[in-house]
Amino acid sequence: MNAETKPSRLRDTRITMAHGGGGRAMRDLIEEVFTDVFRPDSDEDQARLSAEALREPGARLAFTTDSFVVTPLEFPGGDIGKLAVCGTVNDLAVGGAQPLWLSAAFIIEEGTEIAQLKRIVASMAREAAIAGVRIVTGDTKVVGRGSGDGVFITTSGVGVIPPGRDMAARHIRPGDVALVNGVLGDHGATILAARGDLALSSPLQSDCQSLNGLIEAVLAAAPGTRAARDATRGGLASCLNEMAMSAGVTVALDEAALPLRPEVRGMCEILGLDPLYLANEGTLVLFVPEDQAGAALAAMHATEAGRDACLIGRAVEKGTIPVTLRTAFGGTRIVDMLVGEQLPRIC
Amino acid sequence: MNAETKPSRLRDTRITMAHGGGGRAMRDLIEEVFTDVFRPDSDEDQARLSAEALREPGARLAFTTDSFVVTPLEFPGGDIGKLAVCGTVNDLAVGGAQPLWLSAAFIIEEGTEIAQLKRIVASMAREAAIAGVRIVTGDTKVVGRGSGDGVFITTSGVGVIPPGRDMAARHIRPGDVALVNGVLGDHGATILAARGDLALSSPLQSDCQSLNGLIEAVLAAAPGTRAARDATRGGLASCLNEMAMSAGVTVALDEAALPLRPEVRGMCEILGLDPLYLANEGTLVLFVPEDQAGAALAAMHATEAGRDACLIGRAVEKGTIPVTLRTAFGGTRIVDMLVGEQLPRIC
Repeated sequence: MNAETKPSRLRDTRITMAHGGGGRAMRDLIEEVFTDVFRPDSDEDQARLSAEALREPGARLAFTTDSFVVTPLEFPGGDIGKLAVCGTVNDLAVGGAQPLWLSAAFIIEEGTEIAQLKRIVASMAREAAIAGVRIVTGDTKVVGRGSGDGVFITTSGVGVIPPGRDMAARHIRPGDVALVNGVLGDHGATILAARGDLALSSPLQSDCQSLNGLIEAVLAAAPGTRAARDATRGGLASCLNEMAMSAGVTVALDEAALPLRPEVRGMCEILGLDPLYLANEGTLVLFVPEDQAGAALAAMHATEAGRDACLIGRAVEKGTIPVTLRTAFGGTRIVDMLVGEQLPRIC
Repeated sequence: MNAETKPSRLRDTRITMAHGGGGRAMRDLIEEVFTDVFRPDSDEDQARLSAEALREPGARLAFTTDSFVVTPLEFPGGDIGKLAVCGTVNDLAVGGAQPLWLSAAFIIEEGTEIAQLKRIVASMAREAAIAGVRIVTGDTKVVGRGSGDGVFITTSGVGVIPPGRDMAARHIRPGDVALVNGVLGDHGATILAARGDLALSSPLQSDCQSLNGLIEAVLAAAPGTRAARDATRGGLASCLNEMAMSAGVTVALDEAALPLRPEVRGMCEILGLDPLYLANEGTLVLFVPEDQAGAALAAMHATEAGRDACLIGRAVEKGTIPVTLRTAFGGTRIVDMLVGEQLPRIC
């Protein structure tokens, strides 16, 4: 019998404070909603993992964490659960780590529909299988109505960086080219449309996806890859500013080369938003030596997640401005970090 | 110049949505409030750790996570930050792991005082130093007023279980004795009094403390120790029920042996609460073979955290009831798991 056909032990259809109290109601919730799906190895609170991959001399352990507070909880192309898996998988992968194990901690607002929670958890299990990671430990807390917002999920991830691999923004050199795996801003634009405040109907989907497979393909083809980041909150602009400042270079972008869907471009024009600051959840930014750019692009084009990969600019000697953009009209403008907030709670 | 005397780069005294937006305000907040205190090794998002201790054949990696949603955020004997460090350190330690690295993810409600956030972060850094762990990676999200409750913190922890060490509730055998390191219910009673709804004034303090040092001392003195747990949410009663069911034994407690402060006993009598269900945050439950009980108790008595350690009962052949209590009047009663909630948001 699988979890869907098993009769429910839960007496409620919505979360109550008792589901966080440490007693029987909590145990029933955890068993039915979480452990029946994630199937941990034991009933101990902690995961105990045999770390063969870490035994190799020079291998390092990578460890990262992210809380997810996106609203709405479900949106075209994903939901908070898929996002929580992809986000932490990608944080590990952009540092060169092979993601292995995830933890998942849930802060659930009283009144949340248990059926919705089950959909979110099923989505996490699906995405974990796609990314090849295991969700090995977790926690559940319940807060009263008005002290939370449906569900917040914090995932942490552990992975292994193979010996000799050292990707970091500080390794970027003048002359390196900047690549992205696909179109920009889909996630931010999708969330904006999904909130429904704007009476926009849109065919957009979040780009939310795990990037670890794509990154391994790039590293096999272009082993000299200097650095990778996923351009999430703050968009491509904030991501490139951080990388440029870390490396002590200027990044010169070419506006004509930036891949944007007409729908995203249109939405930004209507709302006065800049797509360079829209959040992405499956957008990879890579810096590679120029002589490996072709190999890296070819490797990306061979994958679903990298089908629309392209070159968007290059690193040059450090000027006074970390990131510049050559506009379609031939001028140059500053691409600053996001100041304030363009759109809150997109992840 | 240390973090306290450095002039603040933050223009606000309270958290705004911009502090979670992924741009400059967020970067300033993270630098001033978090990285100036936790001092990670690099500006990359992920921690990269040399895992020497994991290289030993037979060593296992332990991984655990917990969200903390306690209210109030600060209380006698601790605060949400200290709790978030102790809780995860203890989750690792009770499984026999030596805690090494922690992540910390913050979900902060708009309007939270930055000064309070700084106190909480300073408290985390202090407790991490006491426990001998490093906070190596983190995340910050901001939610609007009414979508959170001040600060929620999720800590995850990675540790190493030395070769040959295997503590788990399923190893408990009939005849083993049950020990605790000190008085019961202080944390739950303290939170209850601190909420102020009850017009109770109390000299109580939370027992919130890191137990890894105590556990290592016990394991050195009583290497046959079968299992350890910290009796948190759901109190001693729920913890012992879980252990008894895992092991397939009955645990027989002796009421006269249960260590309780007169203040906690009094508060429970007034409010009709059962101290066996009150939460603890530094209370260790151990099962050891009878012939090592003396050594384990002596090792605990030699430490500050184990000064009041005592024997509270023993495992017997499995009966129909997982946990029983011989009362002071000579009768026996069932000690069930907590049903519903005794007190929410105590951790």
